[in-house]
Amino acid sequence: MIHPDLATLLSFLTTDAKVEAGFLARALKAAVDDSFNMLTIDGDTSTNDMVSIMANGRADNDMITARNGRMFREALNRVCRYLACSIAADGEGATRLIEVYVDGAKSRSQARKVARLIAASALVKAAVHGNDPNWGRVVAVLGRSGADMDEGKLDVYLQGEQVMRSGSPLAFDKDKLSRRMKADTVSIKVCLNIGTGIAIAWGCDLSQEYVTINSDYTT
Amino acid sequence: MIHPDLATLLSFLTTDAKVEAGFLARALKAAVDDSFNMLTIDGDTSTNDMVSIMANGRADNDMITARNGRMFREALNRVCRYLACSIAADGEGATRLIEVYVDGAKSRSQARKVARLIAASALVKAAVHGNDPNWGRVVAVLGRSGADMDEGKLDVYLQGEQVMRSGSPLAFDKDKLSRRMKADTVSIKVCLNIGTGIAIAWGCDLSQEYVTINSDYTT
Repeated sequence: MIHPDLATLLSFLTTDAKVEAGFLARALKAAVDDSFNMLTIDGDTSTNDMVSIMANGRADNDMITARNGRMFREALNRVCRYLACSIAADGEGATRLIEVYVDGAKSRSQARKVARLIAASALVKAAVHGNDPNWGRVVAVLGRSGADMDEGKLDVYLQGEQVMRSGSPLAFDKDKLSRRMKADTVSIKVCLNIGTGIAIAWGCDLSQEYVTINSDYTT
Repeated sequence: MIHPDLATLLSFLTTDAKVEAGFLARALKAAVDDSFNMLTIDGDTSTNDMVSIMANGRADNDMITARNGRMFREALNRVCRYLACSIAADGEGATRLIEVYVDGAKSRSQARKVARLIAASALVKAAVHGNDPNWGRVVAVLGRSGADMDEGKLDVYLQGEQVMRSGSPLAFDKDKLSRRMKADTVSIKVCLNIGTGIAIAWGCDLSQEYVTINSDYTT
Protein backbone atom coordinates (compact mmCIF):
# COMPACT_ATOMS: atom_id res chain seq x y z
CA MET A 1 0.00 0.00 0.00
CA ILE A 2 1.22 3.41 -0.85
CA HIS A 3 -1.47 5.48 0.83
CA PRO A 4 -3.87 4.69 3.65
CA ASP A 5 -6.80 6.03 1.62
CA LEU A 6 -7.11 3.12 -0.71
CA ALA A 7 -10.20 1.03 -0.33
CA THR A 8 -8.92 -2.43 0.44
CA LEU A 9 -10.81 -5.66 0.66
CA LEU A 10 -9.33 -8.40 2.81
CA SER A 11 -11.52 -11.47 3.11
CA PHE A 12 -10.63 -14.44 5.30
CA LEU A 13 -12.72 -17.60 5.07
CA THR A 14 -12.15 -20.43 7.51
CA THR A 15 -13.60 -23.90 7.85
CA ASP A 16 -13.09 -26.85 10.16
CA ALA A 17 -13.64 -29.21 7.25
CA LYS A 18 -10.87 -31.45 6.02
CA VAL A 19 -10.45 -30.47 2.37
CA GLU A 20 -7.93 -31.55 -0.22
CA ALA A 21 -5.75 -28.51 -0.89
CA GLY A 22 -5.87 -28.46 -4.70
CA PHE A 23 -9.64 -28.82 -4.74
CA LEU A 24 -9.99 -26.10 -2.10
CA ALA A 25 -7.96 -23.65 -4.19
CA ARG A 26 -9.97 -24.37 -7.34
CA ALA A 27 -13.28 -24.17 -5.49
CA LEU A 28 -12.31 -20.81 -4.00
CA LYS A 29 -11.23 -19.43 -7.35
CA ALA A 30 -14.53 -20.46 -8.94
CA ALA A 31 -16.55 -19.04 -6.05
CA VAL A 32 -14.65 -15.73 -6.12
CA ASP A 33 -15.08 -15.45 -9.89
CA ASP A 34 -18.86 -15.52 -9.48
CA SER A 35 -19.06 -13.32 -6.40
CA PHE A 36 -16.31 -10.87 -5.42
CA ASN A 37 -15.17 -10.53 -9.02
CA MET A 38 -18.71 -9.62 -10.09
CA LEU A 39 -18.97 -6.83 -7.58
CA THR A 40 -18.58 -3.18 -8.42
CA ILE A 41 -19.07 -0.18 -6.18
CA ASP A 42 -17.53 2.60 -8.22
CA GLY A 43 -15.27 0.93 -10.76
CA ASP A 44 -12.22 1.93 -8.78
CA THR A 45 -10.66 -1.48 -8.27
CA SER A 46 -8.28 -1.44 -5.37
CA THR A 47 -4.80 -2.66 -6.17
CA ASN A 48 -4.67 -4.92 -3.15
CA ASP A 49 -7.84 -6.93 -2.71
CA MET A 50 -7.55 -10.45 -1.39
CA VAL A 51 -9.68 -13.45 -0.52
CA SER A 52 -8.12 -16.38 1.32
CA ILE A 53 -9.48 -19.60 2.72
CA MET A 54 -8.06 -21.81 5.46
CA ALA A 55 -9.25 -25.30 6.32
CA ASN A 56 -7.85 -26.83 9.53
CA GLY A 57 -9.40 -30.30 9.23
CA ARG A 58 -10.65 -30.33 12.84
CA ALA A 59 -14.06 -31.67 11.76
CA ASP A 60 -12.17 -34.90 11.06
CA ASN A 61 -14.51 -35.70 8.16
CA ASP A 62 -13.62 -37.86 5.20
CA MET A 63 -11.36 -35.78 2.99
CA ILE A 64 -13.38 -33.53 0.67
CA THR A 65 -12.10 -33.65 -2.90
CA ALA A 66 -13.32 -32.81 -6.39
CA ARG A 67 -15.09 -36.20 -6.44
CA ASN A 68 -17.36 -35.65 -3.42
CA GLY A 69 -17.10 -31.87 -3.11
CA ARG A 70 -20.37 -30.70 -4.66
CA MET A 71 -22.01 -29.63 -1.40
CA PHE A 72 -18.85 -27.97 -0.15
CA ARG A 73 -18.55 -26.04 -3.41
CA GLU A 74 -22.15 -24.90 -3.22
CA ALA A 75 -21.76 -23.80 0.39
CA LEU A 76 -18.60 -21.88 -0.50
CA ASN A 77 -20.35 -20.21 -3.45
CA ARG A 78 -23.20 -19.19 -1.17
CA VAL A 79 -20.89 -17.69 1.47
CA CYS A 80 -18.93 -15.76 -1.16
CA ARG A 81 -22.09 -14.40 -2.79
CA TYR A 82 -23.49 -13.41 0.58
CA LEU A 83 -20.29 -11.52 1.40
CA ALA A 84 -20.13 -9.87 -2.05
CA CYS A 85 -23.75 -8.70 -1.79
CA SER A 86 -23.13 -7.38 1.71
CA ILE A 87 -20.18 -5.35 0.44
CA ALA A 88 -22.26 -3.88 -2.38
CA ALA A 89 -25.14 -3.00 -0.05
CA ASP A 90 -22.60 -1.47 2.33
CA GLY A 91 -20.96 0.64 -0.42
CA GLU A 92 -20.15 4.25 0.39
CA GLY A 93 -23.41 6.13 0.52
CA ALA A 94 -25.34 3.16 -0.90
CA THR A 95 -29.02 2.98 -0.11
CA ARG A 96 -29.81 -0.19 -2.06
CA LEU A 97 -28.25 -3.23 -3.67
CA ILE A 98 -28.42 -3.62 -7.47
CA GLU A 99 -28.47 -7.17 -8.82
CA VAL A 100 -27.91 -7.48 -12.55
CA TYR A 101 -28.76 -10.80 -14.14
CA VAL A 102 -27.75 -11.41 -17.74
CA ASP A 103 -28.57 -14.54 -19.70
CA GLY A 104 -28.66 -15.67 -23.29
CA ALA A 105 -25.38 -13.93 -24.07
CA LYS A 106 -23.12 -15.38 -26.74
CA SER A 107 -20.62 -16.53 -24.11
CA ARG A 108 -20.09 -16.54 -20.38
CA SER A 109 -17.38 -13.90 -20.69
CA GLN A 110 -19.71 -11.60 -22.67
CA ALA A 111 -22.44 -12.10 -20.06
CA ARG A 112 -19.98 -11.23 -17.29
CA LYS A 113 -18.80 -8.12 -19.09
CA VAL A 114 -22.31 -6.84 -19.79
CA ALA A 115 -23.53 -7.55 -16.23
CA ARG A 116 -20.58 -5.70 -14.72
CA LEU A 117 -20.88 -2.74 -17.10
CA ILE A 118 -24.56 -2.30 -16.25
CA ALA A 119 -23.89 -2.56 -12.51
CA ALA A 120 -21.06 -0.03 -12.86
CA SER A 121 -22.86 2.54 -15.02
CA ALA A 122 -23.09 5.88 -13.23
CA LEU A 123 -26.32 6.67 -15.08
CA VAL A 124 -27.94 3.34 -14.19
CA LYS A 125 -26.81 3.72 -10.57
CA ALA A 126 -28.20 7.25 -10.37
CA ALA A 127 -31.50 6.11 -11.93
CA VAL A 128 -31.82 3.37 -9.30
CA HIS A 129 -31.13 5.95 -6.62
CA GLY A 130 -34.01 8.03 -7.97
CA ASN A 131 -36.34 4.98 -8.34
CA ASP A 132 -36.43 5.72 -12.05
CA PRO A 133 -37.40 2.69 -14.19
CA ASN A 134 -35.06 3.96 -16.89
CA TRP A 135 -34.54 0.94 -19.14
CA GLY A 136 -33.06 3.23 -21.80
CA ARG A 137 -29.90 3.59 -19.73
CA VAL A 138 -29.61 -0.17 -19.34
CA VAL A 139 -29.97 -0.72 -23.07
CA ALA A 140 -27.49 2.08 -23.79
CA VAL A 141 -24.87 0.19 -21.77
CA LEU A 142 -25.53 -2.87 -23.91
CA GLY A 143 -25.00 -0.73 -26.98
CA ARG A 144 -21.56 0.38 -25.89
CA SER A 145 -20.51 -2.94 -24.35
CA GLY A 146 -19.31 -4.44 -27.59
CA ALA A 147 -21.19 -7.65 -26.77
CA ASP A 148 -22.80 -9.54 -29.62
CA MET A 149 -26.51 -8.88 -29.70
CA ASP A 150 -29.59 -8.84 -31.85
CA GLU A 151 -31.77 -5.88 -30.93
CA GLY A 152 -34.88 -7.70 -32.07
CA LYS A 153 -34.35 -10.46 -29.51
CA LEU A 154 -33.71 -8.35 -26.46
CA ASP A 155 -35.86 -8.75 -23.31
CA VAL A 156 -35.40 -6.46 -20.31
CA TYR A 157 -36.96 -6.72 -16.85
CA LEU A 158 -36.84 -4.22 -13.99
CA GLN A 159 -37.76 -5.50 -10.56
CA GLY A 160 -39.33 -8.55 -12.20
CA GLU A 161 -41.51 -6.52 -14.56
CA GLN A 162 -40.85 -6.90 -18.27
CA VAL A 163 -40.26 -3.49 -19.85
CA MET A 164 -38.90 -4.65 -23.22
CA ARG A 165 -39.83 -7.68 -25.31
CA SER A 166 -38.02 -8.70 -28.49
CA GLY A 167 -36.46 -5.26 -28.63
CA SER A 168 -39.74 -3.35 -28.32
CA PRO A 169 -40.57 -1.30 -25.25
CA LEU A 170 -43.67 -2.44 -23.38
CA ALA A 171 -46.20 -0.15 -21.75
CA PHE A 172 -45.97 -0.22 -17.97
CA ASP A 173 -47.25 1.77 -15.02
CA LYS A 174 -44.24 3.97 -14.34
CA ASP A 175 -45.37 5.26 -10.96
CA LYS A 176 -46.13 1.78 -9.72
CA LEU A 177 -42.82 0.34 -10.91
CA SER A 178 -41.00 3.33 -9.44
CA ARG A 179 -42.62 2.59 -6.06
CA ARG A 180 -41.59 -1.07 -6.35
CA MET A 181 -38.00 0.03 -6.96
CA LYS A 182 -37.89 1.51 -3.46
CA ALA A 183 -36.80 -1.90 -2.17
CA ASP A 184 -33.50 -2.83 -0.54
CA THR A 185 -32.59 -4.77 -3.68
CA VAL A 186 -33.30 -3.59 -7.21
CA SER A 187 -33.14 -6.27 -9.85
CA ILE A 188 -32.21 -5.68 -13.49
CA LYS A 189 -32.53 -8.61 -15.86
CA VAL A 190 -31.36 -8.63 -19.46
CA CYS A 191 -31.99 -11.60 -21.76
CA LEU A 192 -30.00 -11.38 -24.98
CA ASN A 193 -31.50 -14.61 -26.32
CA ILE A 194 -28.66 -15.40 -28.68
CA GLY A 195 -26.59 -17.89 -26.65
CA THR A 196 -26.11 -19.62 -23.33
CA GLY A 197 -23.88 -17.17 -21.44
CA ILE A 198 -25.14 -16.33 -17.95
CA ALA A 199 -23.78 -14.01 -15.27
CA ILE A 200 -24.87 -12.07 -12.23
CA ALA A 201 -23.20 -8.88 -11.04
CA TRP A 202 -23.85 -6.78 -7.97
CA GLY A 203 -23.51 -3.09 -7.36
CA CYS A 204 -25.15 -0.27 -5.50
CA ASP A 205 -26.88 2.98 -6.29
CA LEU A 206 -25.01 6.25 -6.70
CA SER A 207 -26.07 8.78 -4.11
CA GLN A 208 -25.21 12.35 -3.25
CA GLU A 209 -23.80 10.81 -0.06
CA TYR A 210 -21.22 8.86 -2.11
CA VAL A 211 -19.87 12.13 -3.46
CA THR A 212 -19.89 13.73 -0.03
CA ILE A 213 -18.02 10.81 1.55
CA ASN A 214 -15.40 10.75 -1.18
CA SER A 215 -14.85 14.46 -1.59
CA ASP A 216 -15.23 15.94 1.86
CA TYR A 217 -13.66 13.40 4.17
CA THR A 218 -10.38 15.25 4.45
CA THR A 219 -11.89 18.54 5.44
CA MET B 1 -32.32 6.44 -30.71
CA ILE B 2 -34.47 4.29 -28.55
CA HIS B 3 -35.20 6.69 -25.73
CA PRO B 4 -35.01 10.47 -25.53
CA ASP B 5 -32.98 10.23 -22.32
CA LEU B 6 -29.75 9.28 -23.96
CA ALA B 7 -27.02 11.83 -23.84
CA THR B 8 -26.22 12.48 -27.44
CA LEU B 9 -23.43 14.50 -28.91
CA LEU B 10 -23.91 15.94 -32.38
CA SER B 11 -21.07 18.17 -33.55
CA PHE B 12 -21.10 20.03 -36.83
CA LEU B 13 -17.97 21.80 -38.01
CA THR B 14 -18.03 24.02 -41.06
CA THR B 15 -15.42 25.94 -42.98
CA ASP B 16 -15.31 28.10 -46.07
CA ALA B 17 -11.91 26.71 -46.96
CA LYS B 18 -11.40 24.62 -50.07
CA VAL B 19 -10.05 21.33 -48.74
CA GLU B 20 -9.28 18.08 -50.51
CA ALA B 21 -11.88 15.57 -49.30
CA GLY B 22 -9.58 12.68 -48.34
CA PHE B 23 -7.27 14.95 -46.41
CA LEU B 24 -10.23 16.58 -44.66
CA ALA B 25 -11.56 13.20 -43.50
CA ARG B 26 -8.17 12.10 -42.20
CA ALA B 27 -7.54 15.44 -40.48
CA LEU B 28 -10.93 15.25 -38.77
CA LYS B 29 -10.35 11.69 -37.59
CA ALA B 30 -6.98 12.63 -36.11
CA ALA B 31 -8.39 15.73 -34.44
CA VAL B 32 -11.35 13.81 -32.98
CA ASP B 33 -9.05 11.07 -31.66
CA ASP B 34 -7.16 13.59 -29.58
CA SER B 35 -10.16 15.63 -28.44
CA PHE B 36 -13.70 14.21 -28.37
CA ASN B 37 -12.40 10.67 -27.98
CA MET B 38 -10.33 11.70 -24.96
CA LEU B 39 -13.31 13.16 -23.19
CA THR B 40 -15.19 11.45 -20.39
CA ILE B 41 -18.01 12.79 -18.26
CA ASP B 42 -19.29 9.67 -16.57
CA GLY B 43 -18.03 6.74 -18.61
CA ASP B 44 -21.50 6.26 -20.09
CA THR B 45 -20.69 6.52 -23.77
CA SER B 46 -23.73 7.38 -25.79
CA THR B 47 -24.47 5.00 -28.61
CA ASN B 48 -24.99 7.77 -31.11
CA ASP B 49 -22.32 10.44 -30.91
CA MET B 50 -21.21 12.10 -34.11
CA VAL B 51 -18.77 14.70 -35.36
CA SER B 52 -19.00 15.91 -38.95
CA ILE B 53 -17.18 18.54 -40.97
CA MET B 54 -18.28 20.34 -44.12
CA ALA B 55 -16.08 22.53 -46.33
CA ASN B 56 -17.84 24.55 -49.02
CA GLY B 57 -14.77 26.02 -50.74
CA ARG B 58 -16.19 29.55 -50.82
CA ALA B 59 -12.90 31.04 -49.63
CA ASP B 60 -11.61 30.11 -53.08
CA ASN B 61 -8.15 29.40 -51.70
CA ASP B 62 -5.61 27.05 -53.24
CA MET B 63 -6.80 23.54 -52.46
CA ILE B 64 -5.62 22.42 -49.01
CA THR B 65 -4.16 18.93 -49.10
CA ALA B 66 -1.92 16.74 -46.94
CA ARG B 67 1.08 18.49 -48.51
CA ASN B 68 0.23 22.03 -47.42
CA GLY B 69 -2.31 21.27 -44.69
CA ARG B 70 -0.26 21.72 -41.52
CA MET B 71 -1.93 24.97 -40.44
CA PHE B 72 -5.38 23.70 -41.29
CA ARG B 73 -4.74 20.55 -39.25
CA GLU B 74 -3.55 22.56 -36.28
CA ALA B 75 -6.54 24.87 -36.45
CA LEU B 76 -8.89 21.90 -36.65
CA ASN B 77 -7.16 20.27 -33.66
CA ARG B 78 -7.54 23.46 -31.70
CA VAL B 79 -11.24 23.82 -32.47
CA CYS B 80 -11.91 20.19 -31.54
CA ARG B 81 -10.00 20.47 -28.27
CA TYR B 82 -11.81 23.68 -27.41
CA LEU B 83 -15.16 22.00 -28.01
CA ALA B 84 -14.18 18.86 -26.07
CA CYS B 85 -13.02 20.91 -23.08
CA SER B 86 -16.21 22.95 -23.20
CA ILE B 87 -18.28 19.78 -23.08
CA ALA B 88 -16.33 18.47 -20.08
CA ALA B 89 -16.63 21.76 -18.22
CA ASP B 90 -20.33 21.75 -19.05
CA GLY B 91 -20.84 18.17 -17.75
CA GLU B 92 -23.90 17.51 -15.62
CA GLY B 93 -23.28 19.10 -12.24
CA ALA B 94 -19.65 19.80 -13.12
CA THR B 95 -17.97 22.62 -11.24
CA ARG B 96 -14.54 22.30 -12.84
CA LEU B 97 -12.64 20.83 -15.77
CA ILE B 98 -10.08 18.09 -15.13
CA GLU B 99 -7.16 17.89 -17.56
CA VAL B 100 -5.09 14.72 -17.32
CA TYR B 101 -1.71 14.76 -19.04
CA VAL B 102 0.22 11.50 -19.32
CA ASP B 103 3.66 11.18 -20.82
CA GLY B 104 6.53 8.71 -20.86
CA ALA B 105 4.14 5.76 -21.29
CA LYS B 106 5.32 2.71 -23.17
CA SER B 107 3.07 3.54 -26.13
CA ARG B 108 0.56 6.13 -27.27
CA SER B 109 -2.30 3.69 -26.73
CA GLN B 110 -1.21 3.00 -23.16
CA ALA B 111 -0.93 6.74 -22.50
CA ARG B 112 -4.44 7.25 -23.88
CA LYS B 113 -5.86 4.45 -21.77
CA VAL B 114 -4.25 5.68 -18.55
CA ALA B 115 -5.27 9.30 -19.16
CA ARG B 116 -8.89 8.34 -19.79
CA LEU B 117 -9.07 5.99 -16.80
CA ILE B 118 -7.77 8.71 -14.48
CA ALA B 119 -10.21 11.27 -15.87
CA ALA B 120 -13.06 8.75 -15.51
CA SER B 121 -12.30 7.54 -11.98
CA ALA B 122 -15.20 8.30 -9.65
CA LEU B 123 -12.79 8.59 -6.73
CA VAL B 124 -10.45 10.99 -8.55
CA LYS B 125 -13.44 13.05 -9.72
CA ALA B 126 -14.88 13.20 -6.19
CA ALA B 127 -11.46 14.19 -4.80
CA VAL B 128 -11.23 17.05 -7.29
CA HIS B 129 -14.71 18.13 -6.29
CA GLY B 130 -13.53 18.29 -2.66
CA ASN B 131 -10.24 20.08 -3.57
CA ASP B 132 -8.41 17.09 -2.14
CA PRO B 133 -4.83 16.69 -3.48
CA ASN B 134 -5.26 12.94 -3.26
CA TRP B 135 -2.46 11.59 -5.44
CA GLY B 136 -3.05 8.12 -3.95
CA ARG B 137 -6.24 7.79 -6.00
CA VAL B 138 -4.40 8.79 -9.17
CA VAL B 139 -1.68 6.23 -8.57
CA ALA B 140 -4.26 3.57 -7.70
CA VAL B 141 -5.79 4.03 -11.15
CA LEU B 142 -2.36 3.45 -12.68
CA GLY B 143 -2.09 0.27 -10.65
CA ARG B 144 -5.30 -1.15 -12.06
CA SER B 145 -4.83 0.19 -15.59
CA GLY B 146 -2.70 -2.71 -16.75
CA ALA B 147 -0.27 -0.21 -18.31
CA ASP B 148 3.41 -1.05 -18.21
CA MET B 149 5.13 0.92 -15.49
CA ASP B 150 8.08 1.05 -13.16
CA GLU B 151 6.98 2.38 -9.80
CA GLY B 152 10.47 3.70 -9.10
CA LYS B 153 10.28 6.02 -12.11
CA LEU B 154 6.87 7.54 -11.52
CA ASP B 155 6.43 11.32 -11.25
CA VAL B 156 3.06 12.88 -10.39
CA TYR B 157 2.02 16.53 -10.44
CA LEU B 158 -1.20 18.11 -9.20
CA GLN B 159 -1.99 21.61 -10.39
CA GLY B 160 1.64 21.94 -11.46
CA GLU B 161 3.06 20.94 -8.08
CA GLN B 162 5.10 17.76 -7.98
CA VAL B 163 3.73 15.41 -5.33
CA MET B 164 5.65 12.25 -6.29
CA ARG B 165 9.16 11.88 -7.64
CA SER B 166 10.65 8.58 -8.80
CA GLY B 167 7.85 6.75 -7.03
CA SER B 168 8.35 8.47 -3.67
CA PRO B 169 5.79 10.89 -2.27
CA LEU B 170 7.06 14.41 -1.73
CA ALA B 171 6.15 16.63 1.19
CA PHE B 172 3.83 19.46 0.19
CA ASP B 173 1.60 22.04 1.84
CA LYS B 174 -1.74 20.29 1.61
CA ASP B 175 -3.88 23.29 2.55
CA LYS B 176 -2.14 25.49 0.03
CA LEU B 177 -2.42 22.95 -2.78
CA SER B 178 -6.05 22.34 -1.87
CA ARG B 179 -6.72 26.07 -2.22
CA ARG B 180 -4.97 26.10 -5.59
CA MET B 181 -7.23 23.26 -6.73
CA LYS B 182 -10.24 25.58 -6.41
CA ALA B 183 -9.59 26.72 -9.98
CA ASP B 184 -11.82 26.26 -13.02
CA THR B 185 -9.33 23.74 -14.39
CA VAL B 186 -7.55 21.14 -12.27
CA SER B 187 -4.49 19.62 -13.88
CA ILE B 188 -3.20 16.12 -13.17
CA LYS B 189 0.09 15.14 -14.74
CA VAL B 190 1.60 11.66 -14.65
CA CYS B 191 5.05 10.92 -16.08
CA LEU B 192 5.72 7.21 -16.37
CA ASN B 193 9.24 7.78 -17.72
CA ILE B 194 9.55 4.46 -19.51
CA GLY B 195 8.65 5.38 -23.09
CA THR B 196 7.45 8.09 -25.45
CA GLY B 197 3.65 7.68 -25.27
CA ILE B 198 1.80 10.95 -24.65
CA ALA B 199 -1.91 11.68 -24.23
CA ILE B 200 -4.26 14.25 -22.75
CA ALA B 201 -7.76 13.45 -21.51
CA TRP B 202 -10.46 15.73 -20.19
CA GLY B 203 -13.17 15.15 -17.65
CA CYS B 204 -15.02 16.93 -14.89
CA ASP B 205 -15.49 16.58 -11.17
CA LEU B 206 -18.20 14.41 -9.65
CA SER B 207 -20.64 16.46 -7.63
CA GLN B 208 -23.72 15.80 -5.55
CA GLU B 209 -25.48 17.80 -8.27
CA TYR B 210 -24.55 15.15 -10.88
CA VAL B 211 -26.42 12.56 -8.83
CA THR B 212 -29.37 14.86 -8.32
CA ILE B 213 -29.62 15.65 -12.05
CA ASN B 214 -29.42 12.01 -13.04
CA SER B 215 -31.66 10.52 -10.39
CA ASP B 216 -34.36 13.09 -9.77
CA TYR B 217 -35.07 14.57 -13.18
CA THR B 218 -38.16 12.48 -13.74
CA THR B 219 -39.88 13.39 -10.50
